[in-house]
Amino acid sequence: MTATTGTRATPTDPTRGRLRPLGLGDVRIVDGFWATRQQVNASASLAHIEGWMDREGWIANFDLAAAHELPAGRKGREFSDSEVYKLLEAMAWEIGRSDDPDLERRFGALVARVGAAQEPDGYLNTQFGRPGQLPRWSDLEWGHELYCFGHLFQAAVARARTRPGADDRLLEIACRAADLVCEVFADEGICGHPEIEVAMVELARVAGEPRYLAQAALFVERRGQGTLADIEWGRAYYQDDLPVRKAEVLRGHAVRAGYLSAGAVDVAVELGDDELLQALVTQWTNTVARRTYLTGGQGSHHQNEAFGDDWVLPPDRAYSETCAAVGSVMFSWRLLLALGGAQYADLIERTLYNVVATSPSHEGTAFYYANTLHQRRPGAVPRQDEPSPRASSSLRAPWFAVSCCPPNVARTLASLAAYVATVDDDGLQLHQYAAAQIRTSLPDGRRVALDIETRYPRDGVVRVVIRETSGEPWTLTLRVPAWAESAVLIEQPAEGAASTTSVPTGEVTVTRAFQPGDVIELQLPLEPRFTAADPRIDAVRGCTAVERGPEVLCLESVDLAAALDGHQENGHLDDHHRDDGRRDDVALAAIDTQVAPREVDGRVVVRVRIEPASGRATWPYGSPATGTAPEPAADWLDVALIPYHDWANRGPSTMRVWLPRCS
Amino acid sequence: MTATTGTRATPTDPTRGRLRPLGLGDVRIVDGFWATRQQVNASASLAHIEGWMDREGWIANFDLAAAHELPAGRKGREFSDSEVYKLLEAMAWEIGRSDDPDLERRFGALVARVGAAQEPDGYLNTQFGRPGQLPRWSDLEWGHELYCFGHLFQAAVARARTRPGADDRLLEIACRAADLVCEVFADEGICGHPEIEVAMVELARVAGEPRYLAQAALFVERRGQGTLADIEWGRAYYQDDLPVRKAEVLRGHAVRAGYLSAGAVDVAVELGDDELLQALVTQWTNTVARRTYLTGGQGSHHQNEAFGDDWVLPPDRAYSETCAAVGSVMFSWRLLLALGGAQYADLIERTLYNVVATSPSHEGTAFYYANTLHQRRPGAVPRQDEPSPRASSSLRAPWFAVSCCPPNVARTLASLAAYVATVDDDGLQLHQYAAAQIRTSLPDGRRVALDIETRYPRDGVVRVVIRETSGEPWTLTLRVPAWAESAVLIEQPAEGAASTTSVPTGEVTVTRAFQPGDVIELQLPLEPRFTAADPRIDAVRGCTAVERGPEVLCLESVDLAAALDGHQENGHLDDHHRDDGRRDDVALAAIDTQVAPREVDGRVVVRVRIEPASGRATWPYGSPATGTAPEPAADWLDVALIPYHDWANRGPSTMRVWLPRCS
Repeated sequence: MTATTGTRATPTDPTRGRLRPLGLGDVRIVDGFWATRQQVNASASLAHIEGWMDREGWIANFDLAAAHELPAGRKGREFSDSEVYKLLEAMAWEIGRSDDPDLERRFGALVARVGAAQEPDGYLNTQFGRPGQLPRWSDLEWGHELYCFGHLFQAAVARARTRPGADDRLLEIACRAADLVCEVFADEGICGHPEIEVAMVELARVAGEPRYLAQAALFVERRGQGTLADIEWGRAYYQDDLPVRKAEVLRGHAVRAGYLSAGAVDVAVELGDDELLQALVTQWTNTVARRTYLTGGQGSHHQNEAFGDDWVLPPDRAYSETCAAVGSVMFSWRLLLALGGAQYADLIERTLYNVVATSPSHEGTAFYYANTLHQRRPGAVPRQDEPSPRASSSLRAPWFAVSCCPPNVARTLASLAAYVATVDDDGLQLHQYAAAQIRTSLPDGRRVALDIETRYPRDGVVRVVIRETSGEPWTLTLRVPAWAESAVLIEQPAEGAASTTSVPTGEVTVTRAFQPGDVIELQLPLEPRFTAADPRIDAVRGCTAVERGPEVLCLESVDLAAALDGHQENGHLDDHHRDDGRRDDVALAAIDTQVAPREVDGRVVVRVRIEPASGRATWPYGSPATGTAPEPAADWLDVALIPYHDWANRGPSTMRVWLPRCS
Repeated sequence: MTATTGTRATPTDPTRGRLRPLGLGDVRIVDGFWATRQQVNASASLAHIEGWMDREGWIANFDLAAAHELPAGRKGREFSDSEVYKLLEAMAWEIGRSDDPDLERRFGALVARVGAAQEPDGYLNTQFGRPGQLPRWSDLEWGHELYCFGHLFQAAVARARTRPGADDRLLEIACRAADLVCEVFADEGICGHPEIEVAMVELARVAGEPRYLAQAALFVERRGQGTLADIEWGRAYYQDDLPVRKAEVLRGHAVRAGYLSAGAVDVAVELGDDELLQALVTQWTNTVARRTYLTGGQGSHHQNEAFGDDWVLPPDRAYSETCAAVGSVMFSWRLLLALGGAQYADLIERTLYNVVATSPSHEGTAFYYANTLHQRRPGAVPRQDEPSPRASSSLRAPWFAVSCCPPNVARTLASLAAYVATVDDDGLQLHQYAAAQIRTSLPDGRRVALDIETRYPRDGVVRVVIRETSGEPWTLTLRVPAWAESAVLIEQPAEGAASTTSVPTGEVTVTRAFQPGDVIELQLPLEPRFTAADPRIDAVRGCTAVERGPEVLCLESVDLAAALDGHQENGHLDDHHRDDGRRDDVALAAIDTQVAPREVDGRVVVRVRIEPASGRATWPYGSPATGTAPEPAADWLDVALIPYHDWANRGPSTMRVWLPRCS
């Protein structure tokens, strides 16, 4: 471990690898899409989440534990401790980002309550180990004890990196718990829900304690040996079917798979285990090629929140759990740091814009747990005064009985600046585009300051303005997203003539002795575009999606109704039989792919055919010639699409990402 | 109630309605498709089922109850009693069908063991009510107590109707239990799993006890008032969201929905409640039009074994539970008896051939619980020595931890002759075609004997030979399936000239003073045909199925491999990434819909295009023009299809019902 790695305010800080991350102290998002979301997260979501955890009794569980009153009065699921830890982590990142004194006070109070519940030997869990509870470690399959510890450790790491040395209370709690883990799990045992792996590597880095890394490596190696009980869904559910280094694709519970993969990359990097690292690259590649939604979402099964078989990506039963997207970002980011490669940042961007940003409402006080790509009927308005089921409505819910996703979104948004840029011996790499200030040093110690000026993704111009540099040459690397097929790079030196270059997708580099005032401008093509799916994805055969830059678009019924005028109430997409017995008047029939999507007054417009919703109720299968002829009186009209992440912010509605182009 | 209705050996015997059922004493299936399955059911399945229930301890639970030793040693799920009752029902029908003395002995022994467990007040359940168990009726949502009683009553009804007066032991047990139900549930309460409703109407009919009918009516009326607890999937899961008479479509758990609907028809018919009956017709119609698979299967969600939204019918995640098909047959049959209508018999036929017949293996000793329409990867061979998960492999399993389906298939096959024909004041109606003997009386008392001679569905010729008739005119009604668009009817009187008529789909009637020796021959067109789906069924957009008569066909990998020759091992359909890390060599790309399906040497052959399975592992979405171009080196070849119900009888395989015709 090097002395410097412990102090960067970044979620992961490997000692080796191709790229080195920057922290919240190096990169600041100052405006635009993500700045708005960080602001809402800080001003609304964190208090909302804390309020619900308080109200549901999940925080009070720690007080009861400290008072030796458990198990009476314990509230929440067996893993509710972890949600409190994720909130602590989110708070820690937000304090690092904004230095909010009120939040600092709340954070300290919460740490004190958590810490009071820790037992003398370091054990800390409100669900296990007391008279009247199951014994410690007696239910590794479903108990989530190590999973909870993992989130505790990540919170401690976030605090230690954002306030190094200032307040070690949470780090002490974590290290005492980690010492116990090393003792208890020296010889055997893994957790049914991976998370401890990724967390213990980071704790090892922060605390400089190699035993934690060794323990994380043991957990990774032990998985896939079938030591967890077999269950109806098979051991693949918790990735205990195949050793990590033998698997070729992610499978089972998607959140578990993502967290495990992230931790396994960390272990591989720290130990120089290239075989393991290569196995994870293969898994990432196959999963992205065969088991990932257009949005970047992963995990298509509602039943077990799991990956389906290859090509099983139904839009209308997409589970695409928000937490799985967070896990995917963690996995991709670690591969990017280890190996470089624009494909990893491409998937991160796609996942952030189309899953992570989709989960919270515009107000930041309601969330999606699952992120469907096709809503067939408008759901009920979720109750505002009690937790909702996980995936039951077209609308975001304020809280869930299983509420892993809200704090996961919160910690991701609060730490988002850490994913913008990296450095290496050659210079600095920009992976995500947002209006930002970067004030950092290259590995050789040279100070570099640059501002990113952009309204991306509203438009495609990204201006990198050099503010400070030593004058020695270094390399600025810019990601050109895979969809940006006619991107242009303009170099505008502070002194001298500008030059314009067309650049391929992937990465473009500019190496020069930069001067303050130099501007490197990347122009990304943001014209809306049709997107087709690999024909092996059966569920969207004959359909077209529309994308614009990194954003997946969708057609929401609100906009179809507006286009229809006079049919405001009944402009839905699917001729669905509603629960109230009403039928829709019209339904979407097809998109006209001969007319390219175009921007009109800032909105993307496409041409679609609508049909009167059929009153027919007959056997829906028949001769191709006669049985499925469309209804007469078809009509064409222009409708506006919206970014998928914006949908369902205007009341109950129906929605499609994939629009039929043939029958 | 009329004196005669109690003695027909038929699963349902309404006192009113358009058509009157015939019993096993009236109709005998003597050869062909269903005779074979009845024989396998009798010779293999019943003993197999009894053996597994014995081995799993589900039967011994009753002995433990009788010995007052419960709850120690109780085995199986909370509803395991019901499986034993369904076995009893299957045995009763089989005894009625074949008069097997060994089976009679086993039946008697099993009834004695069950009866010994009944408590003095009539209560009978091995899971509830003892010290150390939950109190009786304390978990109406999930306890299944009334559900178990329902299956007990149906077994008693089957026995009473197949051996009227000979052995009333089981009927006594049932009536004592039913009396208790009437007492306990006089004022409130319904069961989380409908079944008691349909059973108590029948018990009322057999026992001549109107209180049971009144209680069934109460259960039907109480449902939908929200008295059961709300759950993550909503009260629609157990149909407690909307009153039966208000609902417009089936929803929630598909088996629950089917059983409830069947019972509600019975109640409506007995009470002359036309509003309720009409509501059920509407639900049937909408469900068939929008929520039913090509196979007749119902319920598309794995998560909760439930109906999805309208048009959500994914073939690759089809749940299509075998028991839901049985429930659907029960519902359709009751509407057919109440109202007439070929559409009901059409759906029964489709469901019997393509779901009920699909569940058991050819040997009758392994079963499907779920019946997918698309298998993407060959599953493992299920363990033969322990119960399997419900829907985990491409292969049928000998037993399941939840094993409702095997005895449900068994009771349906054993009683199948009851679904072949009915009578009314005008004459006799044939609904299902099988080589059969019918020896019965018309309602006015006239004897009628006729033989059905046919190899259907191997060919489409159905000959009805009149063996005995009074000479007075009566009407023979034959169903012409909806798919039989160029059917022909030939009347060949014993004396006189034959006449040939083309007949429309629906029903064709022949009214005459029949003479012994008269032959009415229906010729149904059994040429294989392409079938398309309503374009609103998104999951099969751009696909074609192939049907032949009542049978849905499929392409199984075994036959693709055979057509490929030299690629036997790797002729799969989906380019799936296998668990063992191997890739398939080739994959199915498309069916050529320009070449009609044709029969060659008794097999249906279609032309398909195959592709080398792609080694690509890239982002699977892109520009319609360039991103999804098929691989080069496409190849066309002829492949044989098989009936869907036959698939997976040749080892692990992959399979598709819906074949892509475009990308």
